[in-house]
Amino acid sequence: MSIRVGIIGYGNLGRGVECAIKQNNDMELVAVFTRRPPQEVNILTETAKVYHVDEVVGMKDSLDVVILCGGSATDLPKQTPEYAKYFNVVDSFDNHANIPAHFDEVNKTSTENGNVAIISVGWDPGMFSLNRLYANAILPVGSDYTFWGKGVSQGHSDAIRRVAGVKDGKQYTIPVEAALESVRNGENPKLTAREKHTRECFVVAEEGADLAKIEQDIKSMPNYFADYDTTVHFISEEELKKNHSGIPHGGFVIRSGKTGWEEEHSHIIEYSLKLDSNPEFTSCVLVAYARAAYRLNKEGHKGCKTVFDIAPTYLSAKSPEELRKELL
Amino acid sequence: MSIRVGIIGYGNLGRGVECAIKQNNDMELVAVFTRRPPQEVNILTETAKVYHVDEVVGMKDSLDVVILCGGSATDLPKQTPEYAKYFNVVDSFDNHANIPAHFDEVNKTSTENGNVAIISVGWDPGMFSLNRLYANAILPVGSDYTFWGKGVSQGHSDAIRRVAGVKDGKQYTIPVEAALESVRNGENPKLTAREKHTRECFVVAEEGADLAKIEQDIKSMPNYFADYDTTVHFISEEELKKNHSGIPHGGFVIRSGKTGWEEEHSHIIEYSLKLDSNPEFTSCVLVAYARAAYRLNKEGHKGCKTVFDIAPTYLSAKSPEELRKELL
Repeated sequence: MSIRVGIIGYGNLGRGVECAIKQNNDMELVAVFTRRPPQEVNILTETAKVYHVDEVVGMKDSLDVVILCGGSATDLPKQTPEYAKYFNVVDSFDNHANIPAHFDEVNKTSTENGNVAIISVGWDPGMFSLNRLYANAILPVGSDYTFWGKGVSQGHSDAIRRVAGVKDGKQYTIPVEAALESVRNGENPKLTAREKHTRECFVVAEEGADLAKIEQDIKSMPNYFADYDTTVHFISEEELKKNHSGIPHGGFVIRSGKTGWEEEHSHIIEYSLKLDSNPEFTSCVLVAYARAAYRLNKEGHKGCKTVFDIAPTYLSAKSPEELRKELL
Repeated sequence: MSIRVGIIGYGNLGRGVECAIKQNNDMELVAVFTRRPPQEVNILTETAKVYHVDEVVGMKDSLDVVILCGGSATDLPKQTPEYAKYFNVVDSFDNHANIPAHFDEVNKTSTENGNVAIISVGWDPGMFSLNRLYANAILPVGSDYTFWGKGVSQGHSDAIRRVAGVKDGKQYTIPVEAALESVRNGENPKLTAREKHTRECFVVAEEGADLAKIEQDIKSMPNYFADYDTTVHFISEEELKKNHSGIPHGGFVIRSGKTGWEEEHSHIIEYSLKLDSNPEFTSCVLVAYARAAYRLNKEGHKGCKTVFDIAPTYLSAKSPEELRKELL
């Protein structure tokens, strides 16, 4: 019997989860829950149904695990603790600073109600975090580096669009190749924000806007751009749509460490992602951990977990015997 | 209190484990066991003692976990099932084809005696296997690639040294850059052995040996060299010692996958290692999993496990709270 999955929230992430479930034969999408009028939401899976989010609790007996596809700013802090009362849940909460508080809230309701909740699943936090942990445990003497990109930063794109005279815009975060090379060579550089990443902006200006002022306003914006070398390109609306409508991303997690009695040997562990679609990849990670949440709960586990707490075997549809034979 | 560790076997791997334990403050090397006369074995750790391997069972109450540093050909198939009767053990059994049988033997004795045994720990099998599993679980539609090197292959170096007229030699396995690039570009190439790796040999010939014949004998050797583009360099004994006495290695695990309703998006997950010392890095992985074996056993677990069965949190000396705060 398939694992019966529900999705709450049908934006880029929800649609990505729907696509990922199609690629996993042991899982079945049963229902999508939305805040919009259900008849206005068209999903791709013919065998699944769309419901209003108010109906989700009533579906308790029809779902083995629910994947929460809302945003980290306002949706997930409320939704994850709430729905963990009724379901095994997985979320992609990505506000690093608030993870400990979110963990505690979700742990309370999921434990009290005997469900498994896995939070902060995706690639960062998520796969990048896992690689930081593994690399730190293996090489306790060393330095960590995380580079992001080349990819679209939603937060920085939003920041551009709030500048006066800007009609639309996209921002790419790009790792500095020289910094990457220095890290890979084991030089253990101390890197400022500016030395690690550059920022490239593609901006559609409103008609008659002062382009020089827009450029200056972007480049001097504190937190977002002032600490970086930023390039601003003004382009047409058509060009933005044609060349910059994708949501690629990726990045690099590198640990540079030393071993030997006198720390005489150097080692580099590098993990990297090159993603055509940031939300679709995040969705794939969510679906693998949804399988783990269901299985762990079936074995009697409960409470809040992160990627750190899940043995890898729970993520795969293959049996332990197959995994040892084929992948070990 | 520290985790009390014993080492069985004091070659490159045993010495590497000793160095790794020094870097982990929650662990303490108590004893090294050797088949040689103990007084002839000099270790680096002043607070540890050397014993004959026959004494290991008598030390049962002084050790929390024993790291087996013998070879996979003849040592570990006997040692791991035997010592798992008395201790939590970790080994680096790397004969991929025999892992299922080794697992069954070790699982029997460790389960019967209430100990945890973790087998096939290192980087391949080990970290490479983990990355294959994670990447396959996340991207079920895709292709796997493993490249090794640049690094010294012990097996191929041994093969060179068995050729008539060869006094000494070292062989480097080198991934073909064009193949790596094709994989990274998402081209999903089908690659032959020759297209993936080249082999470079540094050979010290005996005086008066027929160099052309040695070169021909190496290049035509079935399994080891015949299926590869092989280069043979004749060098002096001094040069071999000066430039080729290290044991570097490394490699790349890449998964190239597709997502989206029509598989319209491509993704590349890449994990790579660049290691100055193959045995020291393997040792670091062994030590992290020794911590996990001890902790799992303390929680009441028993039986044989692989890296697939261990939640990452067990590998780190940090608490779950610290890990969530610092690395997630």
